Amino acid sequence: MAFAGLKKQINKANQYMTEKIGGVEGTKLDVDFVDMERKTDVTYELVEELQMKTKEFLQPNPTARAKMAAVKGISKLSGQAKASTYPQAEGTLGDCLLMYGKKLGDDSLFGQALQEMGEALKQMADVKYALDDNTKQNFLEPLHHLQTKDLKEVMHHRKKLQGRRLDYDCKRRKQAKGSHVSDEELKQAEEKFAESLHSAQIGMFNLLDNDIEQISQLTTFAEGLLEYHQQCTEILKLAVMEIQEKRDQAASRPKLEFVPKTLNDLHPVDVIADDINGNYLNILILSFSIYIIINSNKITQWSCRC
Amino acid sequence: MAFAGLKKQINKANQYMTEKIGGVEGTKLDVDFVDMERKTDVTYELVEELQMKTKEFLQPNPTARAKMAAVKGISKLSGQAKASTYPQAEGTLGDCLLMYGKKLGDDSLFGQALQEMGEALKQMADVKYALDDNTKQNFLEPLHHLQTKDLKEVMHHRKKLQGRRLDYDCKRRKQAKGSHVSDEELKQAEEKFAESLHSAQIGMFNLLDNDIEQISQLTTFAEGLLEYHQQCTEILKLAVMEIQEKRDQAASRPKLEFVPKTLNDLHPVDVIADDINGNYLNILILSFSIYIIINSNKITQWSCRC
Repeated sequence: MAFAGLKKQINKANQYMTEKIGGVEGTKLDVDFVDMERKTDVTYELVEELQMKTKEFLQPNPTARAKMAAVKGISKLSGQAKASTYPQAEGTLGDCLLMYGKKLGDDSLFGQALQEMGEALKQMADVKYALDDNTKQNFLEPLHHLQTKDLKEVMHHRKKLQGRRLDYDCKRRKQAKGSHVSDEELKQAEEKFAESLHSAQIGMFNLLDNDIEQISQLTTFAEGLLEYHQQCTEILKLAVMEIQEKRDQAASRPKLEFVPKTLNDLHPVDVIADDINGNYLNILILSFSIYIIINSNKITQWSCRC
Repeated sequence: MAFAGLKKQINKANQYMTEKIGGVEGTKLDVDFVDMERKTDVTYELVEELQMKTKEFLQPNPTARAKMAAVKGISKLSGQAKASTYPQAEGTLGDCLLMYGKKLGDDSLFGQALQEMGEALKQMADVKYALDDNTKQNFLEPLHHLQTKDLKEVMHHRKKLQGRRLDYDCKRRKQAKGSHVSDEELKQAEEKFAESLHSAQIGMFNLLDNDIEQISQLTTFAEGLLEYHQQCTEILKLAVMEIQEKRDQAASRPKLEFVPKTLNDLHPVDVIADDINGNYLNILILSFSIYIIINSNKITQWSCRC
């Protein structure tokens, strides 16, 4: 068995080299078959790239993606099921607006407007997460399944076909040349070649004919994306209304006449002169002062030219 | 003059250290002033972070942003005005779909559906570019202006105030302690302190009172974002309809009965046995064959077990 296997491999390599170097033509498969092969190859590349590009589309920050993958790897190794979520840009901006809006306080109209917009952005981040999940489940997973099951099988049959064709052509050539290849041997090789030709054709036909599956998945993706943008539109419509209201309130607010306070208004506390009298402390303070003046850029910044 | 300046700096550093180490209290500014300071600080940080986060929101891929900045730097150095554009994720995915859609050909319904979706995504990328430009012009640039003009001025006045307050307090303390600080000197320091107090208050009040500007800019940003999502919704509505139509066409297409071709259908060309007769060539082919079998994983892959 091992010897027969090696012999077949030698046959195939022999035929491959004879065709490449010697220019001998092997059995040609017809135009329809070649066209199916081309379309299958395109589908194969498409399915690979589509998954990659869709992931990039959903999570456009490669640094965050790499970080998530690393965390996933580490938690897998350590046996913990710690899931890290992708930081949506909407959410990060929303958090920023919310935080500063709250810091400015509810008495500030700008603060209120920031909070409104922040909330809207956070909601949009949630909707984006839903789009992520939906796309993963109904678009990326079926594509991955197609890649690892059907496409893998078809590619396997095509590779087998290629090998068996070489073996068959080699035996046919040898027999024609008068080498010792029995009719039985040639018949067996032909049968195997025919069998693979059948499987490869059926596999490719089924793959290409089943494009309704792929169109359906693409439809689901497009519908999900549409829903996402529709939901964002609804969220933003409300937010814009609220913020416009704040703007109008700010515009109609009576202009305050600001009277800046004078030093007298502040009633400066009399500095108790005797607080520091110890000579030691005074010397310490003086040395520190000189040290600061000479060395610190930061301190000299606020004591710039008066 | 130089000596007077140094003396002032020593005074300020002395007072600063006296307050920090000695625990002496300087002139306290009132609650309203401190509250204005806090709000100004919040605005200062907000304006800084808002610009950064908005840029990240518009262009979430830091690698692409860094590349653009590098290209901009290089083209500036070399004197060329070569502008590089940010690769929108929509556009990249759209290009991918368009390319494979065209490769599958117009006779493939899946190919047609891919092209429809690809076109829609490319349109969405254009709309995103418009959002980018709009946000930069009407939101980020005004924020940058606020940061580099008004806010910078207010912060400058506040720093000056801090220095002049220290100088004034130091002189007051020294005079109370009986050091040689003339009334004239103290009066001058007080006047400068009062002047800065006035400028800082007016500056902060104007900044905080002018929040209608900031709310208006935020409104413009929100409106732009709303418009973007509305336009994406419109584009996707059409695309979804088109793709659904392709799906329905694929579903209603009569199922083809596929008859796989047999070897006989292919009419295999008779391999001319005499093509290769030179002994030298045969030995060459044999050695190559053995070499390939032993070394090449690639070749053995397609000649796997038959």
